[in-house]
Amino acid sequence: MPETRPRKARQPMPQDRDGAFAWIDAQRERRDRAGLVRRLSPRPADSPLLDLASNDYLGLARHPEASAAAAAAAHRWGAGSTGSRLVTGSTELHTTLERELAEFCGFEAALVFSSGYAANLAAVSALGGRDALVVSDADNHASLIDGCRLSRAEIAVVPHADPDAVGKALDADEADAGATKEGEARRRALVVSDAVFSVDGDAAPLAALAAVARRYGAALVVDEAHGLGVLGEGGRGAVHGAGLAGAPDVVVTATLSKSLGSQGGAVLGPARVIEHLVNSARTFIFDTGLNPAAVGAALAGLRLLRREPERAARVRTVAMGLYGRLTAAGLAAVRPDASVVSVRAPSPEKAVRWAADCRAAGLMVGCFRPPSVPDGVSRLRLTARGDLTEDQIEEAADVIVRTAPAA
Amino acid sequence: MPETRPRKARQPMPQDRDGAFAWIDAQRERRDRAGLVRRLSPRPADSPLLDLASNDYLGLARHPEASAAAAAAAHRWGAGSTGSRLVTGSTELHTTLERELAEFCGFEAALVFSSGYAANLAAVSALGGRDALVVSDADNHASLIDGCRLSRAEIAVVPHADPDAVGKALDADEADAGATKEGEARRRALVVSDAVFSVDGDAAPLAALAAVARRYGAALVVDEAHGLGVLGEGGRGAVHGAGLAGAPDVVVTATLSKSLGSQGGAVLGPARVIEHLVNSARTFIFDTGLNPAAVGAALAGLRLLRREPERAARVRTVAMGLYGRLTAAGLAAVRPDASVVSVRAPSPEKAVRWAADCRAAGLMVGCFRPPSVPDGVSRLRLTARGDLTEDQIEEAADVIVRTAPAA
Repeated sequence: MPETRPRKARQPMPQDRDGAFAWIDAQRERRDRAGLVRRLSPRPADSPLLDLASNDYLGLARHPEASAAAAAAAHRWGAGSTGSRLVTGSTELHTTLERELAEFCGFEAALVFSSGYAANLAAVSALGGRDALVVSDADNHASLIDGCRLSRAEIAVVPHADPDAVGKALDADEADAGATKEGEARRRALVVSDAVFSVDGDAAPLAALAAVARRYGAALVVDEAHGLGVLGEGGRGAVHGAGLAGAPDVVVTATLSKSLGSQGGAVLGPARVIEHLVNSARTFIFDTGLNPAAVGAALAGLRLLRREPERAARVRTVAMGLYGRLTAAGLAAVRPDASVVSVRAPSPEKAVRWAADCRAAGLMVGCFRPPSVPDGVSRLRLTARGDLTEDQIEEAADVIVRTAPAA
Repeated sequence: MPETRPRKARQPMPQDRDGAFAWIDAQRERRDRAGLVRRLSPRPADSPLLDLASNDYLGLARHPEASAAAAAAAHRWGAGSTGSRLVTGSTELHTTLERELAEFCGFEAALVFSSGYAANLAAVSALGGRDALVVSDADNHASLIDGCRLSRAEIAVVPHADPDAVGKALDADEADAGATKEGEARRRALVVSDAVFSVDGDAAPLAALAAVARRYGAALVVDEAHGLGVLGEGGRGAVHGAGLAGAPDVVVTATLSKSLGSQGGAVLGPARVIEHLVNSARTFIFDTGLNPAAVGAALAGLRLLRREPERAARVRTVAMGLYGRLTAAGLAAVRPDASVVSVRAPSPEKAVRWAADCRAAGLMVGCFRPPSVPDGVSRLRLTARGDLTEDQIEEAADVIVRTAPAA
């Protein structure tokens, strides 16, 4: 007798509507058990806490000139940019910021994005591509990693801050491709690194990275998120400090939301690279342009930094002072190359407790735990803002030492 | 005699530093020959052009209340949010916007991002995952497509606006997995669609998509970028209009940069989904929070819309009026479901020329060409802003008809 009933799988039953996201609850329970649940704690406008957690390295986010510039731009240019940069979202204010930012950092051209995340996705994905090799530092920021994923390139993740490993990855690729004759096109390659790594605050070996990239005809892409405003002459960035600014094979990405106290991101490089991004970067073409208030504030921040170049040196002094006090008290801090001072904690739970104890004592510190840390080690992340006074640095160090957990 | 010289490929020669980006020139020439080079044309603060190109659907970007709110927020909260939303980047102003946006659109909770692009990357990648199937409309926005790529899920791209095709993709997946017993976990699935498609301005068949998703226990993710402020009761969006707001298996993404006249994006949905994003969405965790001026302006825009719900209906009236005039004159316009009126052009070159002729006659229109169009067809893209007067609509239609190229 023939089977006439349709197969069961072809006759789906109506589902419990709640069921579509039921899997989330299981993930939540796992996070809960591991003590890794994150909750937002919105801050008031006038927090009494001493801030060693933000990325406002130069203290410009609350600088009256930055706020006034944001307000003036909103009044003159409107609350939003109204469209893609390619349609109505480019104002002359964007152009001014791009020109001054490129000049300051020593590059031919710059392009502003709505965030540093978008700038990194753009740079890596538009300069990568199916026929490319991207060599990426193991500790690179999430946005660079996502840029790698979106690029469709072959990705070689190399050990942290290891130019020899970069050379080996490029060399292996060349050997795979066979010996190439002079003038023959090889597969294009990109070496991608943070200038200063967010979690431990250590600087990348840029000169060595540039040298090895050049040896193999590869381009170098450096994220100056934590370098701009802190490193290099007058805060021009680590790439400028390494003598690489304006090089035809170097591209820099930057954020406008850290030292410059605003929001947004930028890519800086040779004019042909910038023109290429205008024509091919999806997070440029299909995103709304940065809002005028943020453009105006970033421009004000940049002009402040140019006028008061000592702000950059001051950040580094504060960071070293903080590091000195913490290590003198026996804490496991990493020697800071820029503005971030990282202090190791014995466990995620103790890190959370430590940060909470600091908060109870009036000090706001960052607390980085898995999965936000590349090596699984939890730590406090302190940002040495350039506008902290000696008393505030002293007070902060006291609180951190006093509340430190036993190892 | 043994070979003692190292292999040639292991002895790379120093490269021409210009060579790292030489491949860009070839791409540029190809684009140039195809007439597809894009250039930025920054606008002045007071453009004399009539704007039918921006996404400022309700005319709120230049509304005095929006600009004043942006300025006030910059003064009160600072020029930037200073960090990740999980560290120092969440202000009470963000929370207020999230609460009022969720209430307005009829969802349990909302989460604000620095852009709609970031919100879409977050929603699709954090709700997808290696063990998921994502069924995606062929005409979805670039940010949804990039979200699919980052999700590591299996992606089934289905024909545009085709609920039957969505059902077949879900059914095929179920058949592959074998019959599942009641209560047994299946592979989780996500159906992803724009509410209104950016290029042609047509609305998705949301009720049918929700029904087919539910039949298979799949979640539905809808991007209201062009629906919020235009469709549904008082501009609550297409999902609200379809009776799906607040459903436990529906998630909405939205932009703050179109109808609300500001910048940023949001995800709205069940509280457990929002909490999941806080804990797992990379473009939330690793991005700087939206700047206060943009948060303030979006909140002002939302309150304006709530107070003046007729703004949403007016946009649709303007769009239909424009469409009626253009089709009466014999142009190939697509009947608008929301605020976008799309008019086909015979070729990319003619589309560019048409847009330039409109501009010379004082009218700014969008011009979409490959690769920004999913079907390769170039068109003018007109946005029917709700604050256009009857005279302006008449004038705009006259210019477009007068400058239309011969087919």
